[in-house]
Amino acid sequence: MIKFAQFGAGFIGKVHGANIAKHPQSELTYIYDIYPTAAEQLAVQFGAKVASSPEEIWASDVDAVLIASSTNTHADLLSAAIQAGKPVYCEKPIDLDIHRVKAVVQQAQQTKLPILVGFSRRFDSNHLRIHQAFQNGEIGRLEMMHITARDPKPPTLGYIKTSGGQFRDQTIHFFDMLRWLAGEDPVEVYATGAALVDPAIDEAGDVDTSMLIWKFPSGALCHINCSRRADYGYDERVELFGSKGMAVSRRKPRREVSLYKGESVISDGMYPGWFERMEPTFYHALDSFIKAVQGEAGVYPNLRDGLMAQMIAEAAVESLHTNQPVKIIYWSPE
Amino acid sequence: MIKFAQFGAGFIGKVHGANIAKHPQSELTYIYDIYPTAAEQLAVQFGAKVASSPEEIWASDVDAVLIASSTNTHADLLSAAIQAGKPVYCEKPIDLDIHRVKAVVQQAQQTKLPILVGFSRRFDSNHLRIHQAFQNGEIGRLEMMHITARDPKPPTLGYIKTSGGQFRDQTIHFFDMLRWLAGEDPVEVYATGAALVDPAIDEAGDVDTSMLIWKFPSGALCHINCSRRADYGYDERVELFGSKGMAVSRRKPRREVSLYKGESVISDGMYPGWFERMEPTFYHALDSFIKAVQGEAGVYPNLRDGLMAQMIAEAAVESLHTNQPVKIIYWSPE
Amino acid sequence: MIKFAQFGAGFIGKVHGANIAKHPQSELTYIYDIYPTAAEQLAVQFGAKVASSPEEIWASDVDAVLIASSTNTHADLLSAAIQAGKPVYCEKPIDLDIHRVKAVVQQAQQTKLPILVGFSRRFDSNHLRIHQAFQNGEIGRLEMMHITARDPKPPTLGYIKTSGGQFRDQTIHFFDMLRWLAGEDPVEVYATGAALVDPAIDEAGDVDTSMLIWKFPSGALCHINCSRRADYGYDERVELFGSKGMAVSRRKPRREVSLYKGESVISDGMYPGWFERMEPTFYHALDSFIKAVQGEAGVYPNLRDGLMAQMIAEAAVESLHTNQPVKIIYWSPE
Amino acid sequence: MIKFAQFGAGFIGKVHGANIAKHPQSELTYIYDIYPTAAEQLAVQFGAKVASSPEEIWASDVDAVLIASSTNTHADLLSAAIQAGKPVYCEKPIDLDIHRVKAVVQQAQQTKLPILVGFSRRFDSNHLRIHQAFQNGEIGRLEMMHITARDPKPPTLGYIKTSGGQFRDQTIHFFDMLRWLAGEDPVEVYATGAALVDPAIDEAGDVDTSMLIWKFPSGALCHINCSRRADYGYDERVELFGSKGMAVSRRKPRREVSLYKGESVISDGMYPGWFERMEPTFYHALDSFIKAVQGEAGVYPNLRDGLMAQMIAEAAVESLHTNQPVKIIYWSPE
Repeated sequence: MIKFAQFGAGFIGKVHGANIAKHPQSELTYIYDIYPTAAEQLAVQFGAKVASSPEEIWASDVDAVLIASSTNTHADLLSAAIQAGKPVYCEKPIDLDIHRVKAVVQQAQQTKLPILVGFSRRFDSNHLRIHQAFQNGEIGRLEMMHITARDPKPPTLGYIKTSGGQFRDQTIHFFDMLRWLAGEDPVEVYATGAALVDPAIDEAGDVDTSMLIWKFPSGALCHINCSRRADYGYDERVELFGSKGMAVSRRKPRREVSLYKGESVISDGMYPGWFERMEPTFYHALDSFIKAVQGEAGVYPNLRDGLMAQMIAEAAVESLHTNQPVKIIYWSPE
Repeated sequence: MIKFAQFGAGFIGKVHGANIAKHPQSELTYIYDIYPTAAEQLAVQFGAKVASSPEEIWASDVDAVLIASSTNTHADLLSAAIQAGKPVYCEKPIDLDIHRVKAVVQQAQQTKLPILVGFSRRFDSNHLRIHQAFQNGEIGRLEMMHITARDPKPPTLGYIKTSGGQFRDQTIHFFDMLRWLAGEDPVEVYATGAALVDPAIDEAGDVDTSMLIWKFPSGALCHINCSRRADYGYDERVELFGSKGMAVSRRKPRREVSLYKGESVISDGMYPGWFERMEPTFYHALDSFIKAVQGEAGVYPNLRDGLMAQMIAEAAVESLHTNQPVKIIYWSPE
Repeated sequence: MIKFAQFGAGFIGKVHGANIAKHPQSELTYIYDIYPTAAEQLAVQFGAKVASSPEEIWASDVDAVLIASSTNTHADLLSAAIQAGKPVYCEKPIDLDIHRVKAVVQQAQQTKLPILVGFSRRFDSNHLRIHQAFQNGEIGRLEMMHITARDPKPPTLGYIKTSGGQFRDQTIHFFDMLRWLAGEDPVEVYATGAALVDPAIDEAGDVDTSMLIWKFPSGALCHINCSRRADYGYDERVELFGSKGMAVSRRKPRREVSLYKGESVISDGMYPGWFERMEPTFYHALDSFIKAVQGEAGVYPNLRDGLMAQMIAEAAVESLHTNQPVKIIYWSPE
Repeated sequence: MIKFAQFGAGFIGKVHGANIAKHPQSELTYIYDIYPTAAEQLAVQFGAKVASSPEEIWASDVDAVLIASSTNTHADLLSAAIQAGKPVYCEKPIDLDIHRVKAVVQQAQQTKLPILVGFSRRFDSNHLRIHQAFQNGEIGRLEMMHITARDPKPPTLGYIKTSGGQFRDQTIHFFDMLRWLAGEDPVEVYATGAALVDPAIDEAGDVDTSMLIWKFPSGALCHINCSRRADYGYDERVELFGSKGMAVSRRKPRREVSLYKGESVISDGMYPGWFERMEPTFYHALDSFIKAVQGEAGVYPNLRDGLMAQMIAEAAVESLHTNQPVKIIYWSPE
């Protein structure tokens, strides 16, 4: 039984807490939140204790830590967890400041602790299957990848202003995905975008509609398109086009229901949001992390993957601002 | 070049005439219709002569005859064509009176003339593919068959009264199809139905909505459902369920277009009628007939197939009227 | 918080136990099983007590009872629960002996206790949507219904022999569904079937492949086809054809993944079994039951629904054995 | 009856000749080809005369001219046709040399002759429907467009060397399509590509796999991806993403057939080539042209559209070679 301490009892914290409680090999021992009421509520629901401070957690006998607190706390908590020798499941991103990210990665160099960064889409059963199809050689060499990622509606302007922008906040999931699916790291990016959904997003210095093209060392090309608002719900799909075929992770409909009337077939459409669509991935990610804590070999997005996605995001942001293709320079810890 | 004489210049006559003209190995030489104006119009369009009488055709050097005149003329024209030694493409049904059908089949016993009865659905590329899948063993032994056949709207009441009823008129295509697909002849049928679309159809002694279950010697079962009115257009599909899998001839949409809006995906639906959906089958049936006239071995619905479908229809009608399962007794020419 | 006592700790008992534990308004207080080890295991997992006897449960302060023990215990437990004044969630069927079923229904006449009979498919989100579409008038008057129900592989011969046969065991879910969807009770049935999957099933006096046609008072017709073995996994789908359109609860694929290769598009197929497909329905059924226990008005399959489905099954069995359409006679408690 | 003279009796010439013969308002009067045997063959099939020289055609009383000869003859024939006052249906492209294209457009300024340039995809019923959906306001303002265009296999290296390259030869259809669908002309393009299918294509200075991003004055973005080889057949599809929804012109399958076996659903895939998929568009384009010749107002791709597509192609080629976004400068005739 893996004993967990969790930081953060907000929306995503509730999801993680419930999964820890549900998983047969884990239990929630401590919960910490800067809002004690929120922590208390989760503690009651899952039979955990409220930690009075992070220090209480580092000093405790918990086997693992789950960081689901606000982004600006991730780096410090990661750092402390590494020092305390606790395996960590950390929500993405590591930090909006790439230098802090690098510092944590540098620190983690010396340890073999399992650290999972929450790119949970890697655990979606549809995406996993096309990953496997490519790895198995079912589509030959990769030549083109297409990722579509559209949210139903933009977050609040307040959120957008502190989010780091569309690429660092929304698209970053797919910056991780393209590396994972291609099995290689992109070398160049061209990015463009505009605020077509809301002019206030433009005034905030951000875009809400964007397209990017990536080049891989193999010559393969990758297109990503991203929107903050899709009238028809959450739309995420991926296509891997190879020399011997194509593997497609299709849209997932909300229900499998159709109405035939007049000249039309009216089918149930998309999920209302990314969470409803992606909810099961959080449990699968947790399961993968628990296996790693138990010593099983396994593959999951680790701290370096978190760094890579953010370096890719930086290049994309630079391209967006300069309207020039940008070569991606990867930093590695010594 | 196969020279054709054609009887009938109505709706379906125009279709056949155009196909004869279009086919690189055939030409329309004569056209006969009891309405000379209709015949004249077709003759001009396809460079044919108007025959002043059927006799002119029997005495001519045409290589083949296409019968697309009204149903009550089919049997006599078939009989005359056989006597004249002309291969025949005859529209279905042979005759509404099963005794006349048997007489023609009896007469044709002595000849080896190619005679194709117009069950053109056998030439639909979707249906052909599932026929082949079963023949190839791709689905193992047949266990269940499902045929759905729904017209957008009922014909006129006048037509219904002289049509022989839903089974002899509409469903008969699928009585041929079930034999063709199963590769065996059904031994028993249970049929039921009602006039749900229009009470006047009930008053005319007919049904417009029906369901049938067939038993085959192998033990396989077949369900057919048939409606005279589908709000959403023409709906025809077939499913072959076997011991090793299932082959499905799906609905064919009018266009491959979808609109994603709100909670729905609105796609283009069905064809407006059976003809728009099945139009290409007439050319393929003609092509098969021309090959037979040219001496190529080939498989097509022949005179005996026409008789079989009608005997099956008679059993279905009896079951409908008695609400009892009916064993099908097949008559064979001596 | 609704305190539950549960009978049965086998496969389906584990499912119910987990749902009771997961539901925010319920908790598992007692578990009873004739195999104390099984009961003990569930008790530990969900923090419940093992009851030493059913009597301990009837005497306890639990708010509700869930019966998931073997079929032959259902009627007695239901009867005792009614006497003890405990609301009951009872797995289907009530009993294989229709007389015992009637006796329980008669007994329950005097009480207003919520009693839910586990026809959980009523809670499937796809089926619910077409139910709603018809209720809302979106497809007009019902004219035809089609239900397809195919299991991946037959249960053991031992199970089949004591199951009451395909209709009482497998098809019964759909006998409930046709009433629920149509909003009326069928008046006549014609059923036929054969043992095409395994001759030993025939020797055991049962069929594994069957087709049925139902007539409703409104004139609507319903087709059900049922197989004990589908090579391609679990296949359940429903079609409601009405005067103004058609509502379809489609097959649910295991994943939304396609591989385009050569001349084919290879997509992920069906779920491996009914449970993987229908798992979420158990939670939704429980939720509906809990609401009823809490006094909310709501619609769920009740004891009379359980009886109706079994009377329909009896008529279907009679038709199967006599090869005659059978009028369904409904018994009602006084 | 519109009398046509046609230049070119090769593959696409045969298609046009057959359509002229089939159309009820047109007939093929003259056919000219530098290979008299090819001309003779078409002449016999469709009852036309072989013209001994282009001059014979210009001097004749034909009502319209169809140019389906090799690309390098288009400009001169167009010029002569304009001088002779004959309406022209001209296959794309006008000429590989943009200066010759401009000269022809300049010359045509003075005339009101109907001149259709063969961007026949505008007449595809699927594409037409999404065009209409956007025009009707069904998807609101356009924000993103996606065009996928993949041929089953590359043409011969010899063809590629004289084709002007992937953008001027294959992608040009979609350079026309993006303007037509967006209803505005792009202002900037970024293009990248590689020869991933065949290194010999790289040696010939061309690419076979490419991705492009376009910016429109409205801010809308457009992605095109293009491959010379798709293992699974011809793949063309278009997506219009707007502020109020999305319209999709989906892939068109070869047949609507599926095989359910084991864990998979195997459906019939794509058409083997662009021609099989797009064949009906040639007839519809001809029909549109005939209407224009007959004086009906109508919209079709005209000479200026041909020029626009080629200017867009030039910008794309420049971007491909410089790896820089390129502003598109449009030349207009005085």
